[in-house]
Amino acid sequence: MNYSEMTRAELLQEKEKCTHEYNLFKAKNLSLDMSRGKPSEGQIQETLGILDTLNSKTPYKTPSNVNTLNYGCPDGIPECKELFAEILEVPAEKILVGGNSSLALMFDYMMQCYAMGASETSEPWIMQGEVKFLCPAPGYDRHFGIAEYLGIKMIPVKMTETGPDMDQVEALVRDPLVKGMFCVPKYSNPTGVTYSDETVKRLAVMETAEDFRIIWDNAYCIHGLFGREDKLLDILDECEKAGNPNRAVEFASTSKISFSGAGVAVLAANAENLAYIKKRCARQTIGYDKANQYRHVLYYKNLEGVKRHMSLLSDIISPRFEVVLNAFNKELLNLGIAEWSNPNGGYFISLNVMPGTATRVYELCKEGGVKLTNVGATFPYGNDPEDSNIRIAPSFPSVEELSDATELLIISTKLAALEKLLK
Amino acid sequence: MNYSEMTRAELLQEKEKCTHEYNLFKAKNLSLDMSRGKPSEGQIQETLGILDTLNSKTPYKTPSNVNTLNYGCPDGIPECKELFAEILEVPAEKILVGGNSSLALMFDYMMQCYAMGASETSEPWIMQGEVKFLCPAPGYDRHFGIAEYLGIKMIPVKMTETGPDMDQVEALVRDPLVKGMFCVPKYSNPTGVTYSDETVKRLAVMETAEDFRIIWDNAYCIHGLFGREDKLLDILDECEKAGNPNRAVEFASTSKISFSGAGVAVLAANAENLAYIKKRCARQTIGYDKANQYRHVLYYKNLEGVKRHMSLLSDIISPRFEVVLNAFNKELLNLGIAEWSNPNGGYFISLNVMPGTATRVYELCKEGGVKLTNVGATFPYGNDPEDSNIRIAPSFPSVEELSDATELLIISTKLAALEKLLK
Repeated sequence: MNYSEMTRAELLQEKEKCTHEYNLFKAKNLSLDMSRGKPSEGQIQETLGILDTLNSKTPYKTPSNVNTLNYGCPDGIPECKELFAEILEVPAEKILVGGNSSLALMFDYMMQCYAMGASETSEPWIMQGEVKFLCPAPGYDRHFGIAEYLGIKMIPVKMTETGPDMDQVEALVRDPLVKGMFCVPKYSNPTGVTYSDETVKRLAVMETAEDFRIIWDNAYCIHGLFGREDKLLDILDECEKAGNPNRAVEFASTSKISFSGAGVAVLAANAENLAYIKKRCARQTIGYDKANQYRHVLYYKNLEGVKRHMSLLSDIISPRFEVVLNAFNKELLNLGIAEWSNPNGGYFISLNVMPGTATRVYELCKEGGVKLTNVGATFPYGNDPEDSNIRIAPSFPSVEELSDATELLIISTKLAALEKLLK
Repeated sequence: MNYSEMTRAELLQEKEKCTHEYNLFKAKNLSLDMSRGKPSEGQIQETLGILDTLNSKTPYKTPSNVNTLNYGCPDGIPECKELFAEILEVPAEKILVGGNSSLALMFDYMMQCYAMGASETSEPWIMQGEVKFLCPAPGYDRHFGIAEYLGIKMIPVKMTETGPDMDQVEALVRDPLVKGMFCVPKYSNPTGVTYSDETVKRLAVMETAEDFRIIWDNAYCIHGLFGREDKLLDILDECEKAGNPNRAVEFASTSKISFSGAGVAVLAANAENLAYIKKRCARQTIGYDKANQYRHVLYYKNLEGVKRHMSLLSDIISPRFEVVLNAFNKELLNLGIAEWSNPNGGYFISLNVMPGTATRVYELCKEGGVKLTNVGATFPYGNDPEDSNIRIAPSFPSVEELSDATELLIISTKLAALEKLLK
């Protein structure tokens, strides 16, 4: 029964029931973490073979004759470019293969634009006054962390079912001090949304400052769940067609394909941007870790190999999402106090609890032994104006732990709503 | 016989002889490279065991309970900090272990100072006008590349037998726009000099701008040759004692201990600098590649293990240095046209040919089939005012190849001098 239709007496009775259940949970002394999108031990176990691919008995020169254990080849081994070209569906010549962190590739690119300018001919952002970035929200906290570090003013943009609210985006980018935008275009963090074709096209054609840059963080490009797969338009292609070839730079990594922290990161860009980025990289490093690039090539071989592996990982992750989603459907669906995403992939479920109660839900869970992502973390400056969004990361705990943690989360969501309604 | 004591007739005769020898060499159609300090295949072979240390059958959690295949531990695994603490002779709490490239750690630190300031309270260098850096020269071209990229004005400082000319340094740093200095303090690139205690102490105590920073690139910290070992004072300690704890940041890597490109880099700094750097790193990456850090720990175990390995590498590298140095001693010593370093370690021999002839020597070698480091590369802006210095990197070619290449270099050095003397 919808809470809004209950009498005060019914609400009080429900609260008593929930408080009783909550206290039973507290007595269990749980210590669980649903806060970060970390792969589980099972995923790591499934991937260990990658460590064996390059050993003291195997050739360490690639078929293209790159010595992976010496200097050289600063933009990545050709075989790894080919692999990412297949995964990202972009030509290999647009690709630079990096180190283990796509966040670092993004940070370094943002820093380049900030301190040196977004192109050979444009003024550094730092020299242009109070520059701004659009931040679809809820979004990825570590994107916001980069902008905050650089002192770039963040403007939240509402996320819809088809991506960021494009009417709002098109209006905001008329301001020439708006220098870019963060996007997680597929299985978005945390809402799970994949940008529609119309959204991608509008991003490519809209009028912006010449040095406006889209940070296209395609972190979950191949991370479907439940055997489903969304399709996403190629932003580089669309920008080229729209006559804005330098607008977007795409980033991805194998952090959630192979190992988080010991994977390989990549960026893709059109010719001018790529040359500009390579020019910086040539000063920054003699080359990224080609041995690890080669491990990935030897293990996955090609797109089919990656897909096969991702299917194994999906078998591990999908049941965890199901535990959470089934419990939400069973226990929250008709109460009128919460909404949540039903993603086709990625690492998160986005839960919107009754406005004004997310912080309280977080506290109740914490007291009960379950750590959630900090409330507000999914918004610029950590500020969720509705105090409503909670990002749930189901990948790391076991199915049993998740079941417990979700129960506690549901009871806490109810209790916080009841406290508010009864105030 | 010294060329300066020869008659014109004798010089002409010598030139005829050298030209004849040069042409014999050209006929050999050599294709050799003495241009970059790259490890040889033999060194790589000696190190391959490192690839086996972490495999699908071994634990991937460290004794300190860090999961090396998942997120976390952004400043490096404790075991790897301990290893570098021994190597660099600094306390482990001063250490941050990075990715594969110490150049990247340096670039990122320089970029941080440039765009964000050298400390929480100091103004970004970019906002302070025409900032400058001192560049002991001859020095490392990739250091100069960072300054050039950032548009920091480079001021060359003369290298002496005990390090940079400290009288010159002390005079120059009175200018508050001089913001720092590059140093390769041990087995310096390319002169092989190790800074004397007095030099290190004077660097620590001299009066500078508050946001002056020494980039202490201890790239060859443990890279002695011929069984010799130089001692270097701890700059961090000296700066602390002098009341300038934030003056220096130290960098190193295993690029020439394990694999170039697939090694591990490190920085060491006093508390305030380290906190400031970690604050940036926390925005830049979720963590460096801990699996590769752990490979190194498992392989080397401790300082003794590293020293044992470096002794094996020295057995490969030292004979290469000897080939070059013996030939120089035999054929150039009494001609009065060249001087060279006799380093106790590192990767380079610095050859000063007759002023005004280095470019010609380079060309003659190139035509003869031997690639040398670009003349001028060891000076800021690629400009050797004397046109005299040639950096020789003997590590990569085989002993036989080196013997040929050195002969050609000696003949070219003579020929260029003779051409000049006969002009």
